[in-house]
Amino acid sequence: MLCLSMETSTKTCSVALVDDNKTLGEIRINSEHTHSQKLMPAVDMLLKSVEKKLDDVELIGVAVGPGSFTGLRIGISTAKGLAYGRKIPVVGISTLEGLALSTNNHEATVVPILNARRNQVYTAIFKYNISSYARLLEDSIIKLDELIGKLNELEGEFIFTGDGVPVFSEQITMALGDRAKFISQYNCIPSAVSIGQIALEQYKLKGGDDPFTLKPEYLRLSEAERNILKGCS
Amino acid sequence: MLCLSMETSTKTCSVALVDDNKTLGEIRINSEHTHSQKLMPAVDMLLKSVEKKLDDVELIGVAVGPGSFTGLRIGISTAKGLAYGRKIPVVGISTLEGLALSTNNHEATVVPILNARRNQVYTAIFKYNISSYARLLEDSIIKLDELIGKLNELEGEFIFTGDGVPVFSEQITMALGDRAKFISQYNCIPSAVSIGQIALEQYKLKGGDDPFTLKPEYLRLSEAERNILKGCS
Repeated sequence: MLCLSMETSTKTCSVALVDDNKTLGEIRINSEHTHSQKLMPAVDMLLKSVEKKLDDVELIGVAVGPGSFTGLRIGISTAKGLAYGRKIPVVGISTLEGLALSTNNHEATVVPILNARRNQVYTAIFKYNISSYARLLEDSIIKLDELIGKLNELEGEFIFTGDGVPVFSEQITMALGDRAKFISQYNCIPSAVSIGQIALEQYKLKGGDDPFTLKPEYLRLSEAERNILKGCS
Repeated sequence: MLCLSMETSTKTCSVALVDDNKTLGEIRINSEHTHSQKLMPAVDMLLKSVEKKLDDVELIGVAVGPGSFTGLRIGISTAKGLAYGRKIPVVGISTLEGLALSTNNHEATVVPILNARRNQVYTAIFKYNISSYARLLEDSIIKLDELIGKLNELEGEFIFTGDGVPVFSEQITMALGDRAKFISQYNCIPSAVSIGQIALEQYKLKGGDDPFTLKPEYLRLSEAERNILKGCS
């Protein structure tokens, strides 16, 4: 089954084509351009590079957040449009789960962190085993201190990844010492390969998501929504 | 310093742009096309995607093997041509070292394996530490059994990566049991990001390679060379 996957939760725009056992191709662009300018040309470029047509795609996988509000809207709208237009299923996948899988780590506690500003992180905790992983913390938005508190209750070492790494690694090392390990800044950006990989697994287990109701998992209100609530209170 | 890196040692054609602390973009194409058709369009595509010009590139990094004879010739010729044409330095990096770095593993023994046919592998052994890695075996072409013999003399677990994983994982697991861990088939393909990352480090330590003498590290004679030797004996 050929899956086209998209990951636009952060500054990185990534698209990939994966099938049941391999990666056919991947593009990751980490530029200042908005995702609306980068996403469709990247999809088109990728399909041509691997000599596939949109008609060959049988499943759409898309990262649903948490992450950048605008980035997520663009990725999810494009995914829904493609799925509806081509009459193929779409599966929404957690950005944090994708990031954790990209670390390739075996038997480690993996902690993806995205900078949610105001000293907060979008985070989750995964425990990897030889061939599977368990969630120790659901996708959350919490203060960095609160995350460190939770990690202090666990044993062993932690592998941190995500765009929060360059921002928070110093604070984390001060708190956790050499129990904290960090994925290199070159590789802590999201990859649509993991999103495609999880989307294929999930589709086989539970089928696709409803393209009409699939929506971003922001985990918090947008600034506009917060302002409305403030005005109402 | 902006580095354009290329990795054409296997079926995967990968190009990346990296600077001193991040990945600007990456393209990986895993198709049947020859690298001569894929490489230059991918470079052009990538530069345009991240809004850079060839004039902005200050260093060329290229994987020099071991790997596919034809793939390596195309990658290295292109790298030398670009470096000579643009009067910028070029650095050749071991394909196996790039693969090992891509695994992102901390404190593990990493064993990249490429299928060299005739039940042989191109391989090397790296021991990772928190921020550095040591080589335990130089780039070699050896029988799989010989590699397993060497690994049996070492302690702990091994992380295998490279296009030899889908081919040899069963044999390796039979010999090493659960001491052998494998990078997922989706991620065991080479990435030009690691090649660029190592090229930048190496350039700062030792300067560039001579673009006139830089050559592929095949580690064995080509079939044509073997036939000539057979004819001579």
